[in-house]
Amino acid sequence: MMKRHGFAICLILSFALSAAAHYVGSPAFNPTLQFLIAAVAIIFAAGFLGKATESVAQYAGERLGGFLNATFGNAAELIIAIFLVKDGLFNTVKASITGSIIGNMLLVLGLSVLIGGLKYKEQHFNVKLAGHNASLMLLAVIALFIPAAFTRSLTTMETQTLSIIVSVILIVAYLLWLFFSMITHKTELSDQALEHGEAVWSKGTSVLFLLLATTMVAIESEWLVSTLEPFSHQYGLSDLFVGAFLIAIVGNAAEHSAAIIMARKNKMGAAVEIAVGSSLQISLFVAPVLVLLSLWFGNPMNIIFTVYELVAIGVAAIIATSISRDGSTTWYEGVLLLVVYLILGIAFYLV
Amino acid sequence: MMKRHGFAICLILSFALSAAAHYVGSPAFNPTLQFLIAAVAIIFAAGFLGKATESVAQYAGERLGGFLNATFGNAAELIIAIFLVKDGLFNTVKASITGSIIGNMLLVLGLSVLIGGLKYKEQHFNVKLAGHNASLMLLAVIALFIPAAFTRSLTTMETQTLSIIVSVILIVAYLLWLFFSMITHKTELSDQALEHGEAVWSKGTSVLFLLLATTMVAIESEWLVSTLEPFSHQYGLSDLFVGAFLIAIVGNAAEHSAAIIMARKNKMGAAVEIAVGSSLQISLFVAPVLVLLSLWFGNPMNIIFTVYELVAIGVAAIIATSISRDGSTTWYEGVLLLVVYLILGIAFYLV
Amino acid sequence: MMKRHGFAICLILSFALSAAAHYVGSPAFNPTLQFLIAAVAIIFAAGFLGKATESVAQYAGERLGGFLNATFGNAAELIIAIFLVKDGLFNTVKASITGSIIGNMLLVLGLSVLIGGLKYKEQHFNVKLAGHNASLMLLAVIALFIPAAFTRSLTTMETQTLSIIVSVILIVAYLLWLFFSMITHKTELSDQALEHGEAVWSKGTSVLFLLLATTMVAIESEWLVSTLEPFSHQYGLSDLFVGAFLIAIVGNAAEHSAAIIMARKNKMGAAVEIAVGSSLQISLFVAPVLVLLSLWFGNPMNIIFTVYELVAIGVAAIIATSISRDGSTTWYEGVLLLVVYLILGIAFYLV
Repeated sequence: MMKRHGFAICLILSFALSAAAHYVGSPAFNPTLQFLIAAVAIIFAAGFLGKATESVAQYAGERLGGFLNATFGNAAELIIAIFLVKDGLFNTVKASITGSIIGNMLLVLGLSVLIGGLKYKEQHFNVKLAGHNASLMLLAVIALFIPAAFTRSLTTMETQTLSIIVSVILIVAYLLWLFFSMITHKTELSDQALEHGEAVWSKGTSVLFLLLATTMVAIESEWLVSTLEPFSHQYGLSDLFVGAFLIAIVGNAAEHSAAIIMARKNKMGAAVEIAVGSSLQISLFVAPVLVLLSLWFGNPMNIIFTVYELVAIGVAAIIATSISRDGSTTWYEGVLLLVVYLILGIAFYLV
Repeated sequence: MMKRHGFAICLILSFALSAAAHYVGSPAFNPTLQFLIAAVAIIFAAGFLGKATESVAQYAGERLGGFLNATFGNAAELIIAIFLVKDGLFNTVKASITGSIIGNMLLVLGLSVLIGGLKYKEQHFNVKLAGHNASLMLLAVIALFIPAAFTRSLTTMETQTLSIIVSVILIVAYLLWLFFSMITHKTELSDQALEHGEAVWSKGTSVLFLLLATTMVAIESEWLVSTLEPFSHQYGLSDLFVGAFLIAIVGNAAEHSAAIIMARKNKMGAAVEIAVGSSLQISLFVAPVLVLLSLWFGNPMNIIFTVYELVAIGVAAIIATSISRDGSTTWYEGVLLLVVYLILGIAFYLV
Repeated sequence: MMKRHGFAICLILSFALSAAAHYVGSPAFNPTLQFLIAAVAIIFAAGFLGKATESVAQYAGERLGGFLNATFGNAAELIIAIFLVKDGLFNTVKASITGSIIGNMLLVLGLSVLIGGLKYKEQHFNVKLAGHNASLMLLAVIALFIPAAFTRSLTTMETQTLSIIVSVILIVAYLLWLFFSMITHKTELSDQALEHGEAVWSKGTSVLFLLLATTMVAIESEWLVSTLEPFSHQYGLSDLFVGAFLIAIVGNAAEHSAAIIMARKNKMGAAVEIAVGSSLQISLFVAPVLVLLSLWFGNPMNIIFTVYELVAIGVAAIIATSISRDGSTTWYEGVLLLVVYLILGIAFYLV
């Protein structure tokens, strides 16, 4: 009880302090200080979010809990991306979409698998869900790859048409996936019945806290992102690297903490749902929605990613699919995911 | 009984009418009318073929029945392609080979899986066969990809040599596959014993009807194909799109009807054999045979496909492999296959 | 007993004769004669090595026996490659690394699977090891592919930096893999308890003979390699083909004989460990070590492979992964591996 009160106080104080740092700004708070304060605040908010996710998962099951976490986590990213699209910063949007996809599939999943695997020799999750996830990941890669492969023979107008149609198809496919996995085949894709632990909060409180925690993470992420520019400028980092790695790591803080906590509790199903589910949501839903929204803003964005972005997404999907397809993970498979993330990070840093 | 007589009358009448439309031609029958008549005739003939395949499958087992259907279905395409090769229309040949491979792996398989899955929650087929099929599909992709990847460093002569050697290797590999799957490992790759329904026709009649039905579909397909040119010209469709999509969809009518009927009867093994088996036969047998025949005609065709064709075949193989490898399917996996087909279709249409 | 004495005499005589041929040289021994003598000597030495591996495997288990065989086999290749790096013959080094990887994954594994499969209808090995092996193979492909994909946007200096960092990461990943597979998850990845046959030699003698046999194969391989140049010159073979096929086939003689003997004894786990384990060791350990050693020699080699080499390695990994992932093999899967090797060989020969 004591411990919980202490946590609540830190959570609120750090939030207030980072708000002050954001709105007062320099010279009272220099960029480095702003960055550190925002980062600490996010750590507490992410911890809160992890607890809330866990509590919701106890009522709703691993998968739905994971799905809610992934969705709230991505809502923040969607909001940030909408502002970027409105400003026509398409390269930054695409870099951060790329970063979010590979960050979830490699870093979040990798850390969860590694940290969970250090505690449990082998962790299991629904093998049918793993198979369907793998096929969906491949669809995401294919849907981003085909327009890029055909674009050099297309006019700008045709590329835009292709982008819009592919976007609509992907959104329909994603909604059908939700219908399939949440309704028609819910039982088949769920993990075995969990022995329920003692719930900390009531059902309603859990959902409310999940919402609150996600909002806090979202707001603090935005504040942190706004401190990144002076940083990256100072250290000479490229937009691609900042978008695909720094922003993505910070932006996925919610998924990070929740997924790792789930993995430590041997609820690999929830951890995979958060990490992979989040990647799928971004590639099959968030990205296409941004393409369609850009039309409405009168400044159309196409769905063509750069070769480097496609390489990163393709490589991440292949290794994550290979590791998760059998429905079980070991600590070394976490290492493999992290190694690929590291190699990609260095390559993007140098480009 | 009544119903069966009515079907037989429609079958014969529609065949006669489409023959008249083909040989009398315009102005009595304008292209649109010819097209519609031929299409209706094919629908009846394909229905007949589906029944015959089903009856043969009851005597010969799911796999052999599926193999016979795939072979008879491809025989028609082989005959059409031989005439195209003789006339030196290599691009059209390759486009229709591509279309036939992806049409079977995405459209035929996708529709079967979707329609079967709407009736049964999960459908199963021999998992070892699925694994071997997946490896063979990858071989097909690899064998078409390597010559294309190496051709820019080769002279025309060397490319031709490579094409001939690869063709011979693929034909040998395909014959060994038949030996393996039909003789040495027949039992291991077959589906569980089916409870036999009441056979409609005797064994001999079934085989005879299978032959007859395939021939009808083949002839009517050719007639329909001959009506496509004015059509595609009128709507400004490219040769690539017509070859890879319109001709392929019509040309695979036999596989379509039979595979879907099998899936509806929960005989997924037969449906997969028809769809995937047909793709494999085209890429590992029909295409190489055409390359060798072109030598004999004195106008050699190489085995180099365009980048777009290779992308389409590669993408189709990857998603079909991912979905079928576990030996079970759900309706959503059918959606995934159809979505990829749709995206490819739009990209080919726009190029 | 009689037979064993006869074998020992042939082994020693052929070794002595090939030594004479190497050091006396022409005109007493012309290149063709040198080549034939060295080849015969290698056949005997490889036979000896196979026996020694088998004996060690009886004491140490299939996996450790396979690992020792792979390591000793690669030690020879590492030594040869170090001399090539020192001389700055980077293209030859990379070609022979490529050849060694695909030679093990396609030729050695293919022959083992085929020959083993002709005797046993289906052969099995640990399915978890197969899954981890597949993911590691993909890591190897990814780690070689990313630097090549990014290099055109990098300066020579940046490419070198990327090469060094990737090399260090791969070596760490490989050492962690040994720690994982030999220590923390040894039991999970091992094959079922073997019924032990009667051991021919004592434990100490077996290890000693394994060391001796590997050394003999290594030395004789080097002698054989030195006879290849006049050969390849005479028949107009390219450096790429000689490096990637001729040298690799000879250099992998140790793995060949041991893996095939294991497969014939239905010890598929050991055969896979030798073939796949050797490929992994070369790509994740030998190649990166050579990059780091080149720095020390003051003549830095990068990790960028040519497109053709990457195609070959990628294709080999995909088909080998597809075949081995289910933990069982049939003779036809051996055919598939050999067919891909053959197609690659012809393409490399023609380029």
